Amino acid sequence: MIIEEFVEKSIGEWRSMRSGHSLAFRQFEEVLSNIVIQEVETDNQLLLELYSAKHLRLEGLSPVKPFYMKWEAESDWNDDDRSENLSGSCIIIPYPVNLESGLLLRSVGYAETEQALSTYSFLDDGTFILKTIYNQSIAEERIWFISENIRCRSSVLRTSEGSGVLQTSFASELRIPKKYNDQK
Amino acid sequence: MIIEEFVEKSIGEWRSMRSGHSLAFRQFEEVLSNIVIQEVETDNQLLLELYSAKHLRLEGLSPVKPFYMKWEAESDWNDDDRSENLSGSCIIIPYPVNLESGLLLRSVGYAETEQALSTYSFLDDGTFILKTIYNQSIAEERIWFISENIRCRSSVLRTSEGSGVLQTSFASELRIPKKYNDQK
Repeated sequence: MIIEEFVEKSIGEWRSMRSGHSLAFRQFEEVLSNIVIQEVETDNQLLLELYSAKHLRLEGLSPVKPFYMKWEAESDWNDDDRSENLSGSCIIIPYPVNLESGLLLRSVGYAETEQALSTYSFLDDGTFILKTIYNQSIAEERIWFISENIRCRSSVLRTSEGSGVLQTSFASELRIPKKYNDQK
Repeated sequence: MIIEEFVEKSIGEWRSMRSGHSLAFRQFEEVLSNIVIQEVETDNQLLLELYSAKHLRLEGLSPVKPFYMKWEAESDWNDDDRSENLSGSCIIIPYPVNLESGLLLRSVGYAETEQALSTYSFLDDGTFILKTIYNQSIAEERIWFISENIRCRSSVLRTSEGSGVLQTSFASELRIPKKYNDQK
């Protein structure tokens, strides 16, 4: 699998069921949401800003297939203070290093200027692995397609200082048929 | 990763948080359970019966590191008629074909005589992939360690006749420290 192919397969509108597991407290969280993934126009303002940002590690790498992602929760059954994170959008630019791995530069929303730089790689069955180091934590995400129209996404959130695992999560994502969209 | 190593890492007592996603109905299921995985004594009666069972596909293959698995639900928040499946035990015998793949023969409980034969393989990061064909469905499971004492387990249940996906699930499993067990 190469990143272009993976992005291509992900383009579309998805209905997501997501379960979060807080390991220390043995608490479940359940979220239904809609996710839209689409290609970005080359003259998109945020894309141009991201391109012009200086990232030492990106020098010498060429961007491919930037995309836009938007997510919006339909419901949060355990309504709490994290609900502000349940909708948002970002632009993501892949920078392949080779066929199986590379870097991902991500804008965090139109409002914030905070960016995130992740590393990605593919396992031999095409599973996509994403690692992102934040200030307080390290996130590891894996995404794999179980059919053309269903993808699974798991994540692990670790403390940045040790190997402590804070939370895991799992999402089942079903593509919303295009026909359905066209009829709306 | 080889199967012996994977079984060795799995030996122990685990506390599991499991989320099930019924895709057609967008329903969540949550189960807390305890899982015990231990080596089997070589004179175990069920093990000897399993060894003597005739399986055409197993001829020429040698068993390694058979183990016993027992699971018991602490609670099922969506109490329904599936609750009888929430506790049980089995013996599992791996039959490696090569370093990365092989077959798994599994007894289904001490009471039933029904057995299941699965194929397994490892991805290049050590993720364990298990496929089992039942009468009505096909199950695909993947298990990966995110630390020495935490493993993740996802499953996909498909209809046997087509590519329809019935259910997905995800479990986060924490090893219960031995010290804690010894003090009990």
